[in-house]
Amino acid sequence: MITTSRTSPLLAYFAHPLALVESDDIGNGTRIWAFAHVMSGARVGKDCNLCDHCFVESGATLGDHVTVKNGVCIWDRVSIGDFVFVGPNAVFTNDPNPRAAIKKNRDQLAETVVREHATIGANATIVCGVEIGRYAFVGAGAVIIRPVLDFALMVGNPARHIGWMCACGHKLPLHQQAHDGFRFVCSHCRRSFIFAGGRPTFS
Amino acid sequence: MITTSRTSPLLAYFAHPLALVESDDIGNGTRIWAFAHVMSGARVGKDCNLCDHCFVESGATLGDHVTVKNGVCIWDRVSIGDFVFVGPNAVFTNDPNPRAAIKKNRDQLAETVVREHATIGANATIVCGVEIGRYAFVGAGAVIIRPVLDFALMVGNPARHIGWMCACGHKLPLHQQAHDGFRFVCSHCRRSFIFAGGRPTFS
Amino acid sequence: MITTSRTSPLLAYFAHPLALVESDDIGNGTRIWAFAHVMSGARVGKDCNLCDHCFVESGATLGDHVTVKNGVCIWDRVSIGDFVFVGPNAVFTNDPNPRAAIKKNRDQLAETVVREHATIGANATIVCGVEIGRYAFVGAGAVIIRPVLDFALMVGNPARHIGWMCACGHKLPLHQQAHDGFRFVCSHCRRSFIFAGGRPTFS
Repeated sequence: MITTSRTSPLLAYFAHPLALVESDDIGNGTRIWAFAHVMSGARVGKDCNLCDHCFVESGATLGDHVTVKNGVCIWDRVSIGDFVFVGPNAVFTNDPNPRAAIKKNRDQLAETVVREHATIGANATIVCGVEIGRYAFVGAGAVIIRPVLDFALMVGNPARHIGWMCACGHKLPLHQQAHDGFRFVCSHCRRSFIFAGGRPTFS
Repeated sequence: MITTSRTSPLLAYFAHPLALVESDDIGNGTRIWAFAHVMSGARVGKDCNLCDHCFVESGATLGDHVTVKNGVCIWDRVSIGDFVFVGPNAVFTNDPNPRAAIKKNRDQLAETVVREHATIGANATIVCGVEIGRYAFVGAGAVIIRPVLDFALMVGNPARHIGWMCACGHKLPLHQQAHDGFRFVCSHCRRSFIFAGGRPTFS
Repeated sequence: MITTSRTSPLLAYFAHPLALVESDDIGNGTRIWAFAHVMSGARVGKDCNLCDHCFVESGATLGDHVTVKNGVCIWDRVSIGDFVFVGPNAVFTNDPNPRAAIKKNRDQLAETVVREHATIGANATIVCGVEIGRYAFVGAGAVIIRPVLDFALMVGNPARHIGWMCACGHKLPLHQQAHDGFRFVCSHCRRSFIFAGGRPTFS
């Protein structure tokens, strides 16, 4: 059993004694837990929480207030916005056609962008090359192979769009398609929305 | 490369030199392997086997003789019964509507209970708030979103009920629905069952 | 935070200072990264890349030039051919009917064979007892429950056969079934193929 007592009083972020942190671009107030590894050249914002057994690769970027639960890898070419929640063992990718015999340049990899406040559910899989919209909600175990709209709730393999999710994490009283200009409120938190351009937005 | 030689002769359980064990509530004969982390306040019974890269959170409870394969996280509000098998990279959850910007109290999390002798297959996902019955068998890769009956065999995303599984790990000769009072034996191990109350039970 | 500086100048392979390597059967040029664990009795070929948080069990065998991304476990009775790519958090198994109360001998486990140049996608699940053919391509999140033909592209849960994938990682211009003797070239890399015996082969 490992027993540890070292702390890092000079850092403005917290790294567990059993974390491996090689990046010097980590924001204040961020916490990095045991057996996690943040590589040199990875960029992590402030007040993030990177749980045990996470991995953040050189070139990956995380905004502020991001929660990354256990066992998640954030690769080069993956960009995570502010206030994103990534559930345990959710899996990102960055090579659309991986073969061991073919080495790729960085520009042959495909980008993945997760917008502010989105949720990626536990054990979800994100096939690279997509954008996941603001406040989108990828359900646990979903396999995302196409872009995801703001506030969209996605489930299944491959994931399909089954509804819309409020900022409060509750389902909005709205069908997949509504008329442009339709106004409504979340029945849980009473936030006001308008449906415009094929998706809900705050009003 | 890490080379390790320390052992823990005074403990009644075994912790690998590269495990991180902070709980003082671990039963005799339990083994905890490399890069696993058992937090303070986690309760682990006797003769369990927690494999590499596992994580057991404060507030989680495991019974006796539980096998937890590699990379599994057992969260607060998850309760695992005696003789449960949790396959590699199976994923539990405890927040039904996670959003990074919303901090939850413990009583806002949803409980998951896995009853005695159940099997959770490799890479399965268990959405919180369900009970998984005794001897239930969640297939590899299944995504559980509803409660699971005793002995039920569940597969797919979302998981559907496709049969019943004996204590011996072989499929029972029984359709999803049978008449109450129907008696039969497992064709593999010859255990006797009766179908009653919508599910099989030992007779 | 762990800071490490030890290197392994006498080894013909590279092991990260935070890797745990117990096997003495590892080929030249192989790299083993942080928090990975290769057990005694595991056999790893040359020029492999075993990423962070991997686990290779006693009895597992890996060929040469194998890429194993983060968080993957290769168990006893799993055999991985040369130039195989295993995506992050892909999950293998070796017990077809796991129950915690039933201890199995090695000969009660089921073998899994992954042939040369195959790709196992991110977060895919491989139910044991199958062979995955040369150049097969298991999509991200797929759940494999049956043998996979050479060059076959498999997606979904359970995985179904939706096409054929070239050695270059691009889809072949070929339906699932073609006439024996049909000749064609990959529209991306111009490799020549013939369809014979129910599957494509190089010509």
